[in-house]
Amino acid sequence: MASYSIHGDIIWTERIGEIRSVENGYLTVEDGKIASVSSSRPDTEIIETGHSLIIPGLSDLHLHAPQYAFCGLYMDEELLEWLNAHTFPEEAKYKDLVYADGAYSIFADDLRKSPTTRFSAFATIHTDSAILLMKKLESAGFSGFVGKVNMDRNSPDYLSETTEESVTETERFLHEAEQFMNVKASITPRFIPSCSEPLLKTLGDIRRRDALPLQSHLDENLSEVEWVKELCPWASSYAAAYCRFGMLGKSSVMAHCVWLDDSEIKLLSETGTYIAHAPSSNTNLSSGIAPVRKYIDAGCSVGLATDVAGGSSLSLFRIMSDAISVSKLRWRLVDEMEKPLTFREAFYLASKGGGSYFGKVGSFEAGYDADIVVLDGSPLSVLDSLAPEERLEQYVYRMAEAPVKAKFIKGRRVL
Amino acid sequence: MASYSIHGDIIWTERIGEIRSVENGYLTVEDGKIASVSSSRPDTEIIETGHSLIIPGLSDLHLHAPQYAFCGLYMDEELLEWLNAHTFPEEAKYKDLVYADGAYSIFADDLRKSPTTRFSAFATIHTDSAILLMKKLESAGFSGFVGKVNMDRNSPDYLSETTEESVTETERFLHEAEQFMNVKASITPRFIPSCSEPLLKTLGDIRRRDALPLQSHLDENLSEVEWVKELCPWASSYAAAYCRFGMLGKSSVMAHCVWLDDSEIKLLSETGTYIAHAPSSNTNLSSGIAPVRKYIDAGCSVGLATDVAGGSSLSLFRIMSDAISVSKLRWRLVDEMEKPLTFREAFYLASKGGGSYFGKVGSFEAGYDADIVVLDGSPLSVLDSLAPEERLEQYVYRMAEAPVKAKFIKGRRVL
Repeated sequence: MASYSIHGDIIWTERIGEIRSVENGYLTVEDGKIASVSSSRPDTEIIETGHSLIIPGLSDLHLHAPQYAFCGLYMDEELLEWLNAHTFPEEAKYKDLVYADGAYSIFADDLRKSPTTRFSAFATIHTDSAILLMKKLESAGFSGFVGKVNMDRNSPDYLSETTEESVTETERFLHEAEQFMNVKASITPRFIPSCSEPLLKTLGDIRRRDALPLQSHLDENLSEVEWVKELCPWASSYAAAYCRFGMLGKSSVMAHCVWLDDSEIKLLSETGTYIAHAPSSNTNLSSGIAPVRKYIDAGCSVGLATDVAGGSSLSLFRIMSDAISVSKLRWRLVDEMEKPLTFREAFYLASKGGGSYFGKVGSFEAGYDADIVVLDGSPLSVLDSLAPEERLEQYVYRMAEAPVKAKFIKGRRVL
Repeated sequence: MASYSIHGDIIWTERIGEIRSVENGYLTVEDGKIASVSSSRPDTEIIETGHSLIIPGLSDLHLHAPQYAFCGLYMDEELLEWLNAHTFPEEAKYKDLVYADGAYSIFADDLRKSPTTRFSAFATIHTDSAILLMKKLESAGFSGFVGKVNMDRNSPDYLSETTEESVTETERFLHEAEQFMNVKASITPRFIPSCSEPLLKTLGDIRRRDALPLQSHLDENLSEVEWVKELCPWASSYAAAYCRFGMLGKSSVMAHCVWLDDSEIKLLSETGTYIAHAPSSNTNLSSGIAPVRKYIDAGCSVGLATDVAGGSSLSLFRIMSDAISVSKLRWRLVDEMEKPLTFREAFYLASKGGGSYFGKVGSFEAGYDADIVVLDGSPLSVLDSLAPEERLEQYVYRMAEAPVKAKFIKGRRVL
């Protein structure tokens, strides 16, 4: 892959709370990696974007691809009711590969147009449609993780497996997923209530055996937390239960973490487990507000997540603005010690914060994967000229769907 | 004006929590008023929209037109800091009619493309640019209220009037505003901290004399509430202070009302004063969450407001979704007795709830003003066919800017 440079107004963040920008700059890519950001024109092919804003690709640490079909609907319900009334019936449809093909095509195409370049995504329990999803995302140029979901208890008959089926199908899923270069398999127990202990143990063993990433849900909703206490009376906490099955660590991401207790914060911090903060979903499903400031201060690894379709937008721009919003309400209404997130911090979480789950991703430092998003650069109804950071802030607050003009993943243009 | 019918999928609400819809229906307009909604084709000119969604025009009960220039910026600050650092310096620019002309042109054009048909808007202290704003909104086809702002104390030198100037300019504003047919003048004391008591008294007298509408701010932020207590030690509450100056009643709208005490709720309910609920702004400026459920239950008149630029969107779609969101967080985190707003309720507040401030506005009942918004009707990335209510819900949650295809105000097409 030859080297090239993208010319425009470049903005990124290397440390939480700090911002870097070069107006009228050149972002140089070599062999799929960031080589440099410079004010002077380098001796490479130039991709001209005028005064477009150039930002790192964003990482969505948690979403459900099959739920995209009803994204933005049925938001008057709480988690467990919403799962049974809408989510499980929709997911059951993905047994049908024709249905899955249509729905996943739309999902992959819309994700391609979004500022997201990496993801950790749930499919459904159906191996073949999970592989189909991987195929579509790989073809669309993405890198990321997809999981065939495991569910062998407390699930509706029409969306359930025996423990044996769940294990066999997971092995088949892992085998078939080997065909893909960039979209990789993730172990995906839905959450403790829907996976028996023998299944959790086996999944933990497989994960260790193959050094695989893992994604699940943790401490989303108070009723769910109570339920896990009943199901795992032997565990000191919900997080400790996952830990017992070898499911925490630097290659694990736990979605939500709205209600972590202090021992759980310590456990996630010590194991390096990623927290996928999904403020839009946590609000829509009345789950609460995750104390993200506390997690950051405790040294946890935190990224952002749309959690489609608990979240009603596929755009991490909307999630950044929601993350700031709910942190302000938490500060005002719950704990005045937890300072609200700033715009810069939210941008960090969406880019390098979540990106680090995938490696050197989400920044324009030399050696990082060249995940690059070029935004339409025209200011929004403003008369005076604005700095790149102000223009980005305005896009984040005002555009539900980010106006993406071009996108590169690992240096390869995908849009 | 001849009669005509718009054909499409029609949806509206007449009572809070209830929804009406006619798929494949005809909305008939006669002399600028709604005549009927019917399933059968009437004998009038037909405006064909296919399967577009047809909803009543929405009412924005509180916004600051001059702040639109920095909408979506500087949201890391609280109210009083944000006013001094950004808002007042921007408003000062509107002394310059050339600047005002440019900025208000953009504002009026963007408002025209939004689902809003009515508004209660602040201009600045500058009479001539307030008149210019009215001219632009009148030309764009709108009906609504605009106020020249009054500020004679605790305001920066560059954005302040003497009491006498403030009164004289208000009279001049009222006189010049008589030229407009549809956009009318509103008395607009900024808020108690920036208006002396003699000024408030005179404005109250003028208002009574001319039977004018009035708009102001009430109980937005805790520091502001404390400040008003110091300024008006004689008043039992912030609302009671406005009441003393004759500023409450059915033609008054008070923005925010985040921190009303029980006596203030009673006062607003008894006087019929409108509450402009601005959830996006109240979150952005860390003000808190207004207990809207409590206000509705107490019989208060409630509508929604963008509060541009405390709010970061000109779209009441975004505000509807934010109103639901914050009501869920309030329910979860502050008071489990206050049931969250449903989608239907938020739609009511944005349409008929706020619309009633302007008369028979915001519904498709016979005799209502024909304020009509036609939305692009294509479903968003969904495979199955959806009912009109589901399609509207999906637009509200997913589109920051509503996809408005056509708009009518008092029966006249404006877009």
